[in-house]
Amino acid sequence: MRVFSMQCEATMQFHLERSVDVLRRTPGVLGAMLGDIDAAWSRTNEGPETFSPFDVVGHLIDGEETDWIPRAGIILAQSANPVFEPYDRFRHRARNAKRSLESLLAEFAELRAANLIVLRSWHLTEAQLDLPGVHPGLGRVTLRQLLAAWVVHDLGHLAQVARVMAKQYRDAIGPWAPFLPVVTDHPTPRS
Amino acid sequence: MRVFSMQCEATMQFHLERSVDVLRRTPGVLGAMLGDIDAAWSRTNEGPETFSPFDVVGHLIDGEETDWIPRAGIILAQSANPVFEPYDRFRHRARNAKRSLESLLAEFAELRAANLIVLRSWHLTEAQLDLPGVHPGLGRVTLRQLLAAWVVHDLGHLAQVARVMAKQYRDAIGPWAPFLPVVTDHPTPRS
Repeated sequence: MRVFSMQCEATMQFHLERSVDVLRRTPGVLGAMLGDIDAAWSRTNEGPETFSPFDVVGHLIDGEETDWIPRAGIILAQSANPVFEPYDRFRHRARNAKRSLESLLAEFAELRAANLIVLRSWHLTEAQLDLPGVHPGLGRVTLRQLLAAWVVHDLGHLAQVARVMAKQYRDAIGPWAPFLPVVTDHPTPRS
Repeated sequence: MRVFSMQCEATMQFHLERSVDVLRRTPGVLGAMLGDIDAAWSRTNEGPETFSPFDVVGHLIDGEETDWIPRAGIILAQSANPVFEPYDRFRHRARNAKRSLESLLAEFAELRAANLIVLRSWHLTEAQLDLPGVHPGLGRVTLRQLLAAWVVHDLGHLAQVARVMAKQYRDAIGPWAPFLPVVTDHPTPRS
């Protein structure tokens, strides 16, 4: 492999196979991070109205059931008014109140695998990737942007899980806090 | 399992077994995120002087070889002056210039597993966890704080890998950027 380094100034264009390759990994990453872990790591959060790792898995399940592939389907149907349903960021709270983390991890893995089968079955063309939909908050978006957002949404929530876990040791690290800024990152909720 | 939610205000006290349980997971998490992934994800970074995911794996290897367990050993030796060696954040650059990501992931997994065997072999007591060492920048730290910092260091770098990957799609997501703040997070390097 050729060794190279690109800077963030030159970001990647959307690439369907590279996107699927990230999306397919997320259930395994979450399983490795959270499978059978102590609730002291999985059920704690960053403060009021923030997600615990348990909440993040529920939120990703909501995305599989109500967001990414359903919205892609609205775009591909090419109706006169391809408006997405608003997304409920707190659907998971009532839905999963009595669930175990293990069962949510398994459910997410099944839903994601099934959705990627659907995505691949579409054999999307460049022209289809440019088709528009209407986001309730953002206005006109393309299928390409929607699929890129799916990838980034996964990665943002993986970063969140690691950050939330790290913060549980904010006091335990003592004088190391200035050298490990993840423990003081994002004092107010933002995503 | 009893369902509960604690807020970050009440952080966890250091807990050896819970710490080992996070530390043992990191090689598998990185393997799930990065194994056989396209260099467009693994070799790109957030700008000058920042780490790519490839760099992060090399940096974690440096930690196994020169930082956490060697420093714990200095503390446990109880010499009159238990000063840690300074840590070289860029040792990995020359060391790994010709290495593949796959070989680094495998090496990290081996080093981490061996170091956790060493850690477990010590059967650390509460009194030993309170023993001090001298950090070249932070001054007096305890073994307990050192081991907590090892955990947080892992988690901070996992968050970094996810964030660096997400940023490669900063432009591809188009109007979604304000809803996915991970793509604009930490515009200047800080850890």
